[in-house]
Amino acid sequence: METTKSSTEEEAFEFEVRKLEISDKRKGFVELLQQLTVCDSISDEAFDRRFEEVAEYGDDHLICVVEDRDSGRIIATGSVLIEKKFIRNCGKVGHIEDVVVDSNIRGKHLGRKMIGFLCDHARAMGCYKVILDCSSDNVAFYERCGFKRKEIQMVNYFGS
Amino acid sequence: METTKSSTEEEAFEFEVRKLEISDKRKGFVELLQQLTVCDSISDEAFDRRFEEVAEYGDDHLICVVEDRDSGRIIATGSVLIEKKFIRNCGKVGHIEDVVVDSNIRGKHLGRKMIGFLCDHARAMGCYKVILDCSSDNVAFYERCGFKRKEIQMVNYFGS
Repeated sequence: METTKSSTEEEAFEFEVRKLEISDKRKGFVELLQQLTVCDSISDEAFDRRFEEVAEYGDDHLICVVEDRDSGRIIATGSVLIEKKFIRNCGKVGHIEDVVVDSNIRGKHLGRKMIGFLCDHARAMGCYKVILDCSSDNVAFYERCGFKRKEIQMVNYFGS
Repeated sequence: METTKSSTEEEAFEFEVRKLEISDKRKGFVELLQQLTVCDSISDEAFDRRFEEVAEYGDDHLICVVEDRDSGRIIATGSVLIEKKFIRNCGKVGHIEDVVVDSNIRGKHLGRKMIGFLCDHARAMGCYKVILDCSSDNVAFYERCGFKRKEIQMVNYFGS
């Protein structure tokens, strides 16, 4: 009797979330970030240095990606930074940042999958909540991911 | 000719922002946090462990306080966590968190002084911006500190 994978299982496997690897730079990781915001090309040296700096924090700063196994390209990314507090009885909070899904990929629920992965990580690290900031356009998406509106994000840009 | 301090200089000295020290627990640091949010009493062991965990990050996670030299009590606190990104050409962002000024202290501009200190630290660490989340009641205060409204904070609470 043969065991065959269902199409759902295959898709789940095809779009696995994993930690960023140093070799992801040549798989289009930086180009993907450019869909999110300003990100000029980064030299290999600068990339490797930043990769190592982030890696020093281990599970306290996780940058994740989804690689399209057919094309070998990075098609989604997101990160979570774990903050250690004194409030909430020495609680921890996960800060989700820099979530982007390749604009060419539609209908695969990669954004939701990425958010779920980052939330699961924060929960496993002992966080009592995760937070993120988004534009009003993305509120409905994050509500579907289990988030609620809370406060107002304020920003102070330096040197501009 | 004598050199005398002006009252402004004396006040600036009196309310100096400094890094949290492990001995600040018995100066009312936890009681001050209780003015901000839920924070039950913390055992000395739990406090010391969390203090050491935060200290491991050095200048990447700074928790600051103001001590009232007359009473020996901690009367203001705030923290900034430095996030290392790939976007913005391997930029850094400062996350300001857990800012609280003793509700008994008024008119000393301690909140503004604390925010200024945390922003200066983030700038010195190479951040291109600092961000924070606040309630609508505090927007005007942060605008006076040089911040602008940006996005919407979303939150996902675990296990409640």
